[in-house]
Amino acid sequence: MSLINFVVVGYGGMGKYHADALISNEKELLQVVGVYDIDRDRQVVADTFGHQVYSSFEAVLNDETVDAILIATPNDSHKELAIAALEAGKHVVCEKPVTMNVVELDEVLAVAEATGKVFMVHQNRRWDPDFLIIRRLFKEKPIGELFKIESRVQGANGIPGDWRHLEAHGGGMLLDWGVHLLDQLLWLIDSDIKHVYADLSYVLGDEVDDGFVAYITFENGVRAVVEVGTTNYTALPRWYVQGLEGSATIKDWAMNGEIIRATGRTDIAAPTPIQAGVGLTKTMAPPSEEATEQLEFPEPKAEYESFYRNFYNVVRKDAEPIVKNSEVRRVMKLIETIFEAGKVLV
Amino acid sequence: MSLINFVVVGYGGMGKYHADALISNEKELLQVVGVYDIDRDRQVVADTFGHQVYSSFEAVLNDETVDAILIATPNDSHKELAIAALEAGKHVVCEKPVTMNVVELDEVLAVAEATGKVFMVHQNRRWDPDFLIIRRLFKEKPIGELFKIESRVQGANGIPGDWRHLEAHGGGMLLDWGVHLLDQLLWLIDSDIKHVYADLSYVLGDEVDDGFVAYITFENGVRAVVEVGTTNYTALPRWYVQGLEGSATIKDWAMNGEIIRATGRTDIAAPTPIQAGVGLTKTMAPPSEEATEQLEFPEPKAEYESFYRNFYNVVRKDAEPIVKNSEVRRVMKLIETIFEAGKVLV
Repeated sequence: MSLINFVVVGYGGMGKYHADALISNEKELLQVVGVYDIDRDRQVVADTFGHQVYSSFEAVLNDETVDAILIATPNDSHKELAIAALEAGKHVVCEKPVTMNVVELDEVLAVAEATGKVFMVHQNRRWDPDFLIIRRLFKEKPIGELFKIESRVQGANGIPGDWRHLEAHGGGMLLDWGVHLLDQLLWLIDSDIKHVYADLSYVLGDEVDDGFVAYITFENGVRAVVEVGTTNYTALPRWYVQGLEGSATIKDWAMNGEIIRATGRTDIAAPTPIQAGVGLTKTMAPPSEEATEQLEFPEPKAEYESFYRNFYNVVRKDAEPIVKNSEVRRVMKLIETIFEAGKVLV
Repeated sequence: MSLINFVVVGYGGMGKYHADALISNEKELLQVVGVYDIDRDRQVVADTFGHQVYSSFEAVLNDETVDAILIATPNDSHKELAIAALEAGKHVVCEKPVTMNVVELDEVLAVAEATGKVFMVHQNRRWDPDFLIIRRLFKEKPIGELFKIESRVQGANGIPGDWRHLEAHGGGMLLDWGVHLLDQLLWLIDSDIKHVYADLSYVLGDEVDDGFVAYITFENGVRAVVEVGTTNYTALPRWYVQGLEGSATIKDWAMNGEIIRATGRTDIAAPTPIQAGVGLTKTMAPPSEEATEQLEFPEPKAEYESFYRNFYNVVRKDAEPIVKNSEVRRVMKLIETIFEAGKVLV
């Protein structure tokens, strides 16, 4: 079958990453046939990188050789661009967050449904190695049933870029990194949400959140903490999870961390009290040596194909998308719930 | 002035620690003149350690040479023992949690008021070196105004002992370790509480909580997370705090950790994007090298005297108690609020 011809719309950091790495890495399936950006400077850069530069979005839509577009523009423009592309008969890959809210998303999904074109959101962090390890712990239960999942990213650089500081463009960290962490979480846990507590941070004085914490309770009893920060000069671990028989920490993307499991041995000494501050504690003392063992991290392998290979198979072979729009919609609803829950504390 | 003669009531782990270390370490101020415990075996142990063993609590109260008693019995017995001791003209040092609830505490405080005897609660962790470091960060602001304080203790040994598993005795970890962490926090932050979210853990299947998390928002905007766990085979740091100009982590009681501060320099390069999982991120990349600096931990020195020295001065010299009963009452009220807030999720 023929290659899928892509035009990348929006040639900022992410658009460039798609054009010059992600799409072009799948040469036997996809190719970038052009770029469109409203910004003159970016057009020049795209030209430098050997891309055909379209003069207008209409020119992209009118080009019958174009099969699909990748949308990597500010969040408030996704809806309009996606609908226009779908109506022009193009398939669409859209950067996250898919839209500003659920209402907008539903408009897009209705057009995708009506046109029969593929609309897929680039929730690429379902392929992150750290997430894949947690996913295997969750599914294969080497430390028992996981009942607590804490997922954090904490940086010290503030809110990135320009439009991400503005509410009108869908800025803020809940919509930026939050959507990744929530997508990973909801994809993992097959249960309805029972309760959401949330606190959004406005420490930097922007009109949008510079971070947030959400404490999510699922109907099946699992608890999750999802936290994003941009004012954190030291950071808590990327992942911290508790299973009924052990706990695991993944500190960072270099995959530092550990998995500790209870051996379940009962023929062993009780822990020895330790001096903790000015007091003694047996409760918080390390378990005796025979009581626990360290496990290796499982291989971070996905049993599912890569994002763009899947997109190709969805378009050409009617395969099932890995990132389903119903899942994307559920995440967007949760984001709305978190924004709402956060208002209690303001 | 003469030594204060103490009888230790309850010769379990904590009572023994008071009798054979804390009180006897202040030889020029205090002395242990005897021990009382309802348990035969413990009476024998106390005898072995050279203590005079009283045959009944009444015998303690009737002994006019006894100035003060230390209560280190199960939590549900504190009220009755304290009231009887105060009414018998003894001063009282009481282990934490002071009572089962605020109503009980108010009964005790009324008797203390009426008898004019000293009643002081052993909130000893106000002297913990890790807390003293956080306290200096909070007060001296080397990383700016602290706006987020996370205080955790996480162990893997379950709920300790016997009666701590039972609701009737005031068991559970909120009343056990929680009271310490909440006391430290409220003593630090001079602001009313605006909102409390809480989730209590019952993973071990006991009738009492085996841990909890509380997310506390103060009227002055400070946020605190207080968390205790007994099913944690790996642990998050003991302290994690964010200031407007930096962050600090104290990992453990051995005082591993770091303080990182923004230099505020503007003549430096933006952070370089890093590969994080399958994506790129500038937001979560380390700041450029000149953007931050590491500070040494301040000396963990208290500018206030030790607990038992203070108790002596309160009794003998009418000094102001470091652990005030109004503070103890505020913590007990917060504990009740946390128990109540936790019910939302059950």
